[in-house]
Amino acid sequence: MEFKVAQIAQMLSAEIEGNPEATIRTVCKIEEGVEGGLTFLANPKYTHYIYDTDATAAIVNKSFTAEKPVKCTLIKVDDAYVAFAQLLDFYNQSKRKKSGISAHACVAESAKIGKNVYIGEFVSVGENVTIGDNCQIFPHVCLGDDVKIGEDTVLNSGVKVYAECVIGNHCIIHAGTVIGADGFGFAPKDGDFVKVPQIGNVVIEDHVEIGANTCIDRSTMGSTIIHKNVKLDNLIQIAHNVEVGEGSAFAAQAGVAGSAKIGKHCIMGGQTAVAGHISVGDGVMVGAQSGVTHSLKGNQIVLGSPAIPLGEEKRLIIYRKKLPELYARVSELEKKISKND
Amino acid sequence: MEFKVAQIAQMLSAEIEGNPEATIRTVCKIEEGVEGGLTFLANPKYTHYIYDTDATAAIVNKSFTAEKPVKCTLIKVDDAYVAFAQLLDFYNQSKRKKSGISAHACVAESAKIGKNVYIGEFVSVGENVTIGDNCQIFPHVCLGDDVKIGEDTVLNSGVKVYAECVIGNHCIIHAGTVIGADGFGFAPKDGDFVKVPQIGNVVIEDHVEIGANTCIDRSTMGSTIIHKNVKLDNLIQIAHNVEVGEGSAFAAQAGVAGSAKIGKHCIMGGQTAVAGHISVGDGVMVGAQSGVTHSLKGNQIVLGSPAIPLGEEKRLIIYRKKLPELYARVSELEKKISKND
Amino acid sequence: MEFKVAQIAQMLSAEIEGNPEATIRTVCKIEEGVEGGLTFLANPKYTHYIYDTDATAAIVNKSFTAEKPVKCTLIKVDDAYVAFAQLLDFYNQSKRKKSGISAHACVAESAKIGKNVYIGEFVSVGENVTIGDNCQIFPHVCLGDDVKIGEDTVLNSGVKVYAECVIGNHCIIHAGTVIGADGFGFAPKDGDFVKVPQIGNVVIEDHVEIGANTCIDRSTMGSTIIHKNVKLDNLIQIAHNVEVGEGSAFAAQAGVAGSAKIGKHCIMGGQTAVAGHISVGDGVMVGAQSGVTHSLKGNQIVLGSPAIPLGEEKRLIIYRKKLPELYARVSELEKKISKND
Repeated sequence: MEFKVAQIAQMLSAEIEGNPEATIRTVCKIEEGVEGGLTFLANPKYTHYIYDTDATAAIVNKSFTAEKPVKCTLIKVDDAYVAFAQLLDFYNQSKRKKSGISAHACVAESAKIGKNVYIGEFVSVGENVTIGDNCQIFPHVCLGDDVKIGEDTVLNSGVKVYAECVIGNHCIIHAGTVIGADGFGFAPKDGDFVKVPQIGNVVIEDHVEIGANTCIDRSTMGSTIIHKNVKLDNLIQIAHNVEVGEGSAFAAQAGVAGSAKIGKHCIMGGQTAVAGHISVGDGVMVGAQSGVTHSLKGNQIVLGSPAIPLGEEKRLIIYRKKLPELYARVSELEKKISKND
Repeated sequence: MEFKVAQIAQMLSAEIEGNPEATIRTVCKIEEGVEGGLTFLANPKYTHYIYDTDATAAIVNKSFTAEKPVKCTLIKVDDAYVAFAQLLDFYNQSKRKKSGISAHACVAESAKIGKNVYIGEFVSVGENVTIGDNCQIFPHVCLGDDVKIGEDTVLNSGVKVYAECVIGNHCIIHAGTVIGADGFGFAPKDGDFVKVPQIGNVVIEDHVEIGANTCIDRSTMGSTIIHKNVKLDNLIQIAHNVEVGEGSAFAAQAGVAGSAKIGKHCIMGGQTAVAGHISVGDGVMVGAQSGVTHSLKGNQIVLGSPAIPLGEEKRLIIYRKKLPELYARVSELEKKISKND
Repeated sequence: MEFKVAQIAQMLSAEIEGNPEATIRTVCKIEEGVEGGLTFLANPKYTHYIYDTDATAAIVNKSFTAEKPVKCTLIKVDDAYVAFAQLLDFYNQSKRKKSGISAHACVAESAKIGKNVYIGEFVSVGENVTIGDNCQIFPHVCLGDDVKIGEDTVLNSGVKVYAECVIGNHCIIHAGTVIGADGFGFAPKDGDFVKVPQIGNVVIEDHVEIGANTCIDRSTMGSTIIHKNVKLDNLIQIAHNVEVGEGSAFAAQAGVAGSAKIGKHCIMGGQTAVAGHISVGDGVMVGAQSGVTHSLKGNQIVLGSPAIPLGEEKRLIIYRKKLPELYARVSELEKKISKND
């Protein structure tokens, strides 16, 4: 690819500060700028790099004002991160796309496959499966009987979807993720376990992205539900009967226990845990490694295991660090008192 | 399916309170009851739903006595959860089962396959593998050389079993789980690592169920052993040389480090960790996100990281929350003392 | 296999204390010694077993001096663990190796495959892939377009490598691991998420071993880099743009958030977390379940969540446990003061 700064600015409806005729041949990080490279500045932590970067141009927020001379040409937009994402997407779209159904895939005759679908090698498609138009199904995916996949959805290599699960439109699921394995349900009986069959399914709505090697279990009855626009990272555990509200995002290795209900637009940090049978309100943020042990009202930030409001936990962390000093103060008081006695 | 309440009650040797002629066409959750639906009440948290549920009938414990009128017909049994599990199992059994060996599987000539075995598409079965009668081996399973699988065992899609590992009868292993990868063993030498080959195997006894994307490593020598009736959830790490005692259950994302020995009938919460080379006695329960750092005697409940007895940890959590108050009290004392001086 | 003790001692340049003519037919753990078995003693915790083991011979450090009579023959070396690892490796090498390209693999015509390469059943090799000499690629591996694999590398069953990723020489990657899935990058826009395309790749240098079901995400731009001699256990999360320095080792279920930089020769305990955009110096050790929330200088040991220097954290754990006592002391002081008032 080769573009003039002016062309890129036009695509982004951006203002230019510098040389509109400069040529862009690649993208780069701001701290690893190269001649011919286009970078961006969104995280304030990286602001100091803008003055010395060897990148030819940088996308910045309109609100940015340089405090000293800047070598590179500035492309000013409302939101530099979003604008850069759009450019990367444009670059990605320009790559060749896989197409066609591999002769080495096994597709049941009863399956209904949409138009313009790619099905890679060694894919197994079960009875009565439906796959919508423009889907990309990479090698080694396994779709159990009666699975439904919407349109424009990408299932990367080795994704396993158990029978009867439903995945929406415009979803991306990364390699090795398992959708619809049996929930972990056992009834204790005479010191032993009786398996509780899991006859429900998993429903994943539109525009959901799920990372690699994540697990979303089927419900005992009804559905485990991932609502639209949810983004799940890698190695996440979503237990049976859980519901994750619209637009929530989970960082890697988070886990939600059975029948918990997560609200809309929640953010779960890495390695967080949510206990079973509780509900978390809309707009809750949970700090990394926290453990949510009871239901939470919406629109708050919590931290710790057990998780409590962020401010309180931060104060307790400081107080804990000062414990040696507190013990010394109490000993000092005891000495004084015993003298006074 | 369509049954009269009386037929279901007969199957469960249950008493009926209400209409024995009511028709059941589906199962449902108590909080999402529907006409024609059968539900159950086991968790006391859900008791209030019984009075208003739209379900046609509900399985309840004999000990349950309604405190106000109940709309639905009650089916009274000794253990509502176990009885409901039995019904779901009956429902599950009635579904068509996969059978036959796919023409798209690769089975080594030296492998011995039992009667009535299903082997799905793209399954790879190595040299000298044994598979017992009635096993169900789903697509993309890989069985290394000399693997032994007992009877009536189900390996879901993409399960990988390394060479020489042994899996018992009546086991269920969910998609993406890896049995017998090399244990994490390295000898430090001159600031570098020398790999310690892992020449042992994994032995999984009868009636074990293992979730999705879980890892059980082969031992350096001898066997990593999962005893009978153990239930492991998703994304669990069992390191080399570990032994898990009969009837223990691990929630998702738990991890056990090398050579640790877990007793019988233990319960490990989600995201718990057990350190290497220690032993945990029978009947120990470990709360979620706890870290067991030293050997534990049997029949106790522990919590925290490092884990200590539950009562003690709970008390410390409360005391920690009151630290701001304690600091204030100490400051107050200091003021008074300095006045008195 | 059958060897005299003298032969083994010669291979290891070791001294013999006992019977050089004794016959070795197997290897065994010291606590499970058998006649004809060779064991080793490296961990001082296991020293007491040496006096009673039924093993025929044991490899021990030269520094070991028996405090009472030992039944078995001793084979004395500089480093017993390293010597035993070498023997196990010798044993492993003697096993038959897989070879040839399966007729059931799909290898793109544009791929370049080295000499003496094994490619198992149902392996999918994309366009322009390069695989070096002596590689072992097990069933169900998927290599995306333009992937490069060095020489003598082993990819176990079901490993998925996304397009354009690079893996070095002498690497071992265990089953189910995913290399190069999209990093978790989303730009918030109008209460919704815009996906930030991840157009970088993953570079794994030589002599890296990675466990099962681990995930290493591709970078937004540039490369996520795992430097040489790094050892990663199972179920680990390495986010986009992360760099892990030479010779570092991570225990299972650890996670590193985006753009963090881990130094050389670091040790990360199980279930540890490292926050995004921070750097950890060389030679840092992080205790299990710890959370590193800010950048750390090199050559220190940290513990806790948030992680602080080991000594400090250990002291705080003790002070926390004594809180009930401290509260009692403060109450006692308050009583005395109020009397004095």
